[in-house]
Amino acid sequence: MHYTKEDIKAMDRVARLKIINSVSGIKPANLIGTISNTGETNVAVFSSIVHLGSDPALLGFICRPQTAEVGHTYRNIQENEQYTINHIHPEFVKNAHYTSAKFDRDISEFESCSLTEEYITDFKAPFVKESSFKMGMRFKEALDIKLNGTILVIGEIEYLMMSQTAFVDDDIDLEQTNSVGISGLNSYYELKKIARYPYVRVPEVPKF
Amino acid sequence: MHYTKEDIKAMDRVARLKIINSVSGIKPANLIGTISNTGETNVAVFSSIVHLGSDPALLGFICRPQTAEVGHTYRNIQENEQYTINHIHPEFVKNAHYTSAKFDRDISEFESCSLTEEYITDFKAPFVKESSFKMGMRFKEALDIKLNGTILVIGEIEYLMMSQTAFVDDDIDLEQTNSVGISGLNSYYELKKIARYPYVRVPEVPKF
Repeated sequence: MHYTKEDIKAMDRVARLKIINSVSGIKPANLIGTISNTGETNVAVFSSIVHLGSDPALLGFICRPQTAEVGHTYRNIQENEQYTINHIHPEFVKNAHYTSAKFDRDISEFESCSLTEEYITDFKAPFVKESSFKMGMRFKEALDIKLNGTILVIGEIEYLMMSQTAFVDDDIDLEQTNSVGISGLNSYYELKKIARYPYVRVPEVPKF
Repeated sequence: MHYTKEDIKAMDRVARLKIINSVSGIKPANLIGTISNTGETNVAVFSSIVHLGSDPALLGFICRPQTAEVGHTYRNIQENEQYTINHIHPEFVKNAHYTSAKFDRDISEFESCSLTEEYITDFKAPFVKESSFKMGMRFKEALDIKLNGTILVIGEIEYLMMSQTAFVDDDIDLEQTNSVGISGLNSYYELKKIARYPYVRVPEVPKF
């Protein structure tokens, strides 16, 4: 199948959303946990976490344009600059997915979707207890993407927690951590490791 | 295991790179193809493609700080504003991985890594023939991330090509397209679909 820019423009809105949300390939499945300054917690599924750098350890994620109905995650982050990123595992994929409902701000998705808040000393935002791979993040900067009103939210990792079994041969193995991927808006995937190659230097490139 | 920001800062550089490149979860495995205005082609593996919006259909990717040695992809895009994004499949994961070597600008990774250039009418940048899921992109904007010198490069989809078998029940299925994920710097994963849920409206949230 072959679509041009004009074909994409002419698509039915829902068909376009489903297709264009899938074309980048597999996306990481994470829950972002936050808390307002009045103590209301929020947790929501995000598939747009992206690695920005390792020193300092920076991750970004994309926020959709803020409206009255959506945007509780970003509003909470603006209030106190803290959030958590928690890997989703197969056991609670369904709970995680339903956090995408547009609940009112005073409704906690933790309760509505049966996920458990977990707290550590010196960090205000709630972690997801069911996740075995999670990070406490400190907000650093937000970049406005004027082309479509989205926002790249950048934070630094302050706390990183994972199981010892995450490490296989000195590397994190996302099959062992039971981490999950997303395509489009609503399909979830398990991961099966198929290959690992060394860091590449030009003289070591094999003859293909 | 529990690491603080200070623990991460104190890690050996390579250990930190390996860990922090993995913590966001699974990343999409794509090859970006470009051509300079003097006709030198380039293809390189990228794991940072991120969906920004569907109307217009925008994707972003992260470029590392530009040096004399690296950055041929972004330099070619600056010259003629075109690039291609091509999903990686298991059959050529090894070829794709070795494009990460720092070849000189006048060496084409297509040739060095045995990948095949493919062209379509009215589009200058090379596609990867071995990929069955690919896009022709038009550069729109670059946002500087001053925190670490990286760049968010944003483009619009002008051409989208995929196999008819990509669609399962009206949705793109990344297991059927044989798309691949990456963790860290050098581990590759196949995808196995485990669940698909409807678009969520609050009254339809199940009792958990």
